[in-house]
Amino acid sequence: MMAREVYLDNSSTTPMHPEVLKEMQTLLERKYGNPSSLHRLGNDAERTLSSSRQLLAEQLGVKSGEIYFTSGGTESNNMALAGIARRNYRRGKHLLTSKIEHPSVLEPLKKLEVEGFQVTYLEPDRNGLLDPFQLAETVTPKTILVSVMHVNNEIGTIQPIAEIAAAIKRKNPQTIVHVDAVQSFTRLPLSPREQGIDVLSISAHKFHGPKGTGALYIRGGILVEPLLAGGEQEKGLRAGTENTPGIAAMALAARLNSENRKEKTAQSKIFKEKMLSSIETAHPWAQINGPRKAEGVPNILNISFPGLKGEIILHALEEHNIFVSTGSACHSRKNKPSHVLEAIGAEKAALDGAIRISFSSMNTPEEIEYAASKIPQVISELKAFMS
Amino acid sequence: MMAREVYLDNSSTTPMHPEVLKEMQTLLERKYGNPSSLHRLGNDAERTLSSSRQLLAEQLGVKSGEIYFTSGGTESNNMALAGIARRNYRRGKHLLTSKIEHPSVLEPLKKLEVEGFQVTYLEPDRNGLLDPFQLAETVTPKTILVSVMHVNNEIGTIQPIAEIAAAIKRKNPQTIVHVDAVQSFTRLPLSPREQGIDVLSISAHKFHGPKGTGALYIRGGILVEPLLAGGEQEKGLRAGTENTPGIAAMALAARLNSENRKEKTAQSKIFKEKMLSSIETAHPWAQINGPRKAEGVPNILNISFPGLKGEIILHALEEHNIFVSTGSACHSRKNKPSHVLEAIGAEKAALDGAIRISFSSMNTPEEIEYAASKIPQVISELKAFMS
Repeated sequence: MMAREVYLDNSSTTPMHPEVLKEMQTLLERKYGNPSSLHRLGNDAERTLSSSRQLLAEQLGVKSGEIYFTSGGTESNNMALAGIARRNYRRGKHLLTSKIEHPSVLEPLKKLEVEGFQVTYLEPDRNGLLDPFQLAETVTPKTILVSVMHVNNEIGTIQPIAEIAAAIKRKNPQTIVHVDAVQSFTRLPLSPREQGIDVLSISAHKFHGPKGTGALYIRGGILVEPLLAGGEQEKGLRAGTENTPGIAAMALAARLNSENRKEKTAQSKIFKEKMLSSIETAHPWAQINGPRKAEGVPNILNISFPGLKGEIILHALEEHNIFVSTGSACHSRKNKPSHVLEAIGAEKAALDGAIRISFSSMNTPEEIEYAASKIPQVISELKAFMS
Repeated sequence: MMAREVYLDNSSTTPMHPEVLKEMQTLLERKYGNPSSLHRLGNDAERTLSSSRQLLAEQLGVKSGEIYFTSGGTESNNMALAGIARRNYRRGKHLLTSKIEHPSVLEPLKKLEVEGFQVTYLEPDRNGLLDPFQLAETVTPKTILVSVMHVNNEIGTIQPIAEIAAAIKRKNPQTIVHVDAVQSFTRLPLSPREQGIDVLSISAHKFHGPKGTGALYIRGGILVEPLLAGGEQEKGLRAGTENTPGIAAMALAARLNSENRKEKTAQSKIFKEKMLSSIETAHPWAQINGPRKAEGVPNILNISFPGLKGEIILHALEEHNIFVSTGSACHSRKNKPSHVLEAIGAEKAALDGAIRISFSSMNTPEEIEYAASKIPQVISELKAFMS
């Protein structure tokens, strides 16, 4: 047994980067002023917010005045969808999305349906890919908002965001394009201006930042109704005393995790190939869910072992200090089949047996070496036991 | 000049308690699992959430299943008001509150008015006190919700919460009583069951916990619509990956700040009397805004020096490392007169010249000694300069 934890559940949440941790610890102690206070301690905190905003804006190539801090990805997605729909309904009440979005997109949309909006949910293909032209065909003059995730959290599909945005805007230049970039930010290049993205959600704990903090990019000119009303923070769009230490830690994590992206991506590819070849050599009956190669990110691998339950595999692996997930953490306690795997047409046996292995730049080759040899072994043992 | 910062702006935000800081630092590093993950790291985090919930519930004498974690006081207040109104409107559309509530109560109520609710805003007396019987008189069969703050953040008035709740329930037993306890929790005894409180908001950074975390007590049986939809966290009432380190730190801060409450209150009283007598001896023309004694908390002192602007005093004091505020931090950058001071009928000169001095259990007698001698001196200098 490997003594250290081999954490391969990085799409659920990530450990904090050591430098980010150190920065946050310092700020928690020293930078306690309320950014709204007029005295020096308040101004210091306000300056930290301001430089954090600037740092995040630079990562996206946008203006710092277009970045709004939130309590995380779920709030960012809720604020984007409810805030845009409720503020722009006079132009139309049609919203467009896909069947494989995160629950923090799908659930607010369900609420908006109750409020009188019409939502179209598009089907992806077998790999989880959306067709930009099919998407654009459903855009009408009444379509005020399209919400599409950049990278799927369960199977890793990368949507062709720029093509999707372009196709939508050709059909209706007024349609606002929201992208849930929770899984992709820092890992894939993102440039809202060049890609035609109007609003974009991120979450710090997915890129080695702290939990409880996220952000929303809102292009200047886009009108959004606040979700949290009260003080004048975030230009009145998001009330509440800002979590300065968390925000500064998020900004630092964004910078650090974006550095050497090519090298990190290359390493992640090696990890995924190593894992895949090791599993498939031992178990040619294993089924990959979602894209194998180019259409998917290298840090997510979703794989089913028909006949074995994902939860059984997960617990067997944790005996060896290897931590993976079944589907996504967001509904892992619900014991419901994954809506993503259902939407890409996975069979019943694959639905039950899926595990998700997700890497990060903090994993080491030694960890992957260990896990790639241990996982097939554990599957063999479980299979022998079941038959 | 005193070398250390003399922080007397504790109603805006507080520095973290050293033990809380240490606990949070440890958890940020080690307890990084997603509480929704099924493996050991997830279960560990889930257990930490569960014991934090229990600890907070004990402080309030309620069931742990009645505590819901949020991103702070603003979210708690927004969730309580919008969530209760939107879920219970079939019973009536009348809401009741006072003119001196926090903006995170008043602003959501304004939004609810736009949605078709009727809101009655009651006037407090000269000390900021509400009359339970006057309040109850405005309760009708259509009144679904009353929202009253326990302690006013600007002038420190303590509302007779139990009498208010009792008077309301006598008139309409169905009316839900929400209390914004952001300023009082841990400092004053709170017992929702005995006091007739149905829903109660708290915010960690007001009692030496971290920013970005808060909670809402919701009595079992009260129906609330979620503000943030998505995952199944918090029994579906508040989606989003839980900020485990922040939540655990909040729970510990709650316990620590509640300990030795009598001694802390007694010390705070000494601080306030010392400050008051020192200021009033030197400047008998100073005006106390709000309650002087029993109706107010001992940790807040709001005082005006007619002819001197609050902001000028604030900046003069920070030259001596003393940090106070003008009104509340929430709208201090807006340069608008305080709605609280207006509501209690303060004169124009008092509005402009108000500063708020707010203590915490982390202030020392030496700090208060220093500030109590320095503040009257600074006022004398400013006055000489102005005349």
